Amino acid sequence: MTDVVKIGGNVINDPAVLSEFLKIFSGLPGKKVLVHGGGREASALARAMGIEPVMVSGRRVTDRNMLDIVTMVYSGLINKRIVARLQELGCNAIGLSGADANTIPAVKRSPEPIDFGFVGDINPESVNSSFIELLLTNGMTPVFSAICHDANGTLLNCNADGVAASLARAIASEDEVRLTYCFEMPGVLSDVNDPSSVIPLVTLSNFTELKEKGIIAGGMLPKIENALASASSGVAEVRICAWNNMADGCGTILRKE
Amino acid sequence: MTDVVKIGGNVINDPAVLSEFLKIFSGLPGKKVLVHGGGREASALARAMGIEPVMVSGRRVTDRNMLDIVTMVYSGLINKRIVARLQELGCNAIGLSGADANTIPAVKRSPEPIDFGFVGDINPESVNSSFIELLLTNGMTPVFSAICHDANGTLLNCNADGVAASLARAIASEDEVRLTYCFEMPGVLSDVNDPSSVIPLVTLSNFTELKEKGIIAGGMLPKIENALASASSGVAEVRICAWNNMADGCGTILRKE
Repeated sequence: MTDVVKIGGNVINDPAVLSEFLKIFSGLPGKKVLVHGGGREASALARAMGIEPVMVSGRRVTDRNMLDIVTMVYSGLINKRIVARLQELGCNAIGLSGADANTIPAVKRSPEPIDFGFVGDINPESVNSSFIELLLTNGMTPVFSAICHDANGTLLNCNADGVAASLARAIASEDEVRLTYCFEMPGVLSDVNDPSSVIPLVTLSNFTELKEKGIIAGGMLPKIENALASASSGVAEVRICAWNNMADGCGTILRKE
Repeated sequence: MTDVVKIGGNVINDPAVLSEFLKIFSGLPGKKVLVHGGGREASALARAMGIEPVMVSGRRVTDRNMLDIVTMVYSGLINKRIVARLQELGCNAIGLSGADANTIPAVKRSPEPIDFGFVGDINPESVNSSFIELLLTNGMTPVFSAICHDANGTLLNCNADGVAASLARAIASEDEVRLTYCFEMPGVLSDVNDPSSVIPLVTLSNFTELKEKGIIAGGMLPKIENALASASSGVAEVRICAWNNMADGCGTILRKE
């Protein structure tokens, strides 16, 4: 079994939280892959350089300057900090972007209807799963930033949830995969103000109901749609849980049916 | 045979030169490793952030902020740009720091007599040559920045010439190695103002003479001492040449005797 775990800004922004998370992650037995998003530092660096970040519909617009900044922060600073900490913990981490070894080729998103700039989308079938398998079978733990490339010399900023889902689907062609999205909340909640209201199981059929009743809404919708798509594409288990409960089997399980 | 090639700021600073160099490098037949230094961008980024770079004896003082900056610029921006360009050229590049897969453990330099901060020195015997060999035999081309780690969670800024020499010596335990230092000049010159005055061969014995006569002096001395040390440690051939003559066998050859 291979664990693919995704963390976002909520885990990355606080060094103490990140350090504690990595301790839990390094303790997962067997083969594992970590995918990390960005966090606040890219925007902070941009502002320090006099560049104001632009977000449209909650997504970053990545012009040439911002591409340099996210490449530096995601693939440089955050990725190598995580690798150094995992190595300290005895986990043989190897930090990668999707450009390295052509692991994750992406396609630049159409500038219509919104021009997000150097932003890419991934075709899960083009992921280089044999390279990842080579690392895993040799005892290494790949750590991916969401910087990918178009294989024609251009780096592209991709969505880290999408990178995790694509990697999970690709590895599923060679091994049983558990894909875990780590959050600050203990799972998908039926009442966002009540952390004890975790919905234990979301399937394609009850998702429609939960959506119609407005119980799942907003930013959670695309995340769950992505997770269900993975569950429908060969990934044995998809889970949304709190970063500090990752190893305990808690949270929301997502299944095709 | 494995080629280990090192480029510095003179090749990295000009995008057109870097692009042309990478075209030549990608055309080298067989197994190859690239090591890159930094260039102007780290200092430029520091200044853009209001931090004035500090150099002592031509070497960068790396405090906590500067460590973040060189990690971003060397392991993020420059490394991934090189990887994307090599991938475009059909060369299966994989960008790494010395922390990744614990490839190059380093030791923080003593703060006496000069405190360089987060700067490390490498013991060539601790380099993880079996991992590099795994990548090379699987058709990959490792591209190293000079960011290493102490294996206790701290990243360290190392000298790229030293990284190249350490990698060359480590790989030499498994294969014949040619180590090439690429410069803006066509080799070691007997007259720095005359590019046609290339000294074709430097050995331990004529180096002493060249040094005593003042023909080799200044910043060239430590470079040649490093190169001769590599030539004395199992590396089959060490060469200093112009970046655009790398594939033609020109330049200065350095040999033990």
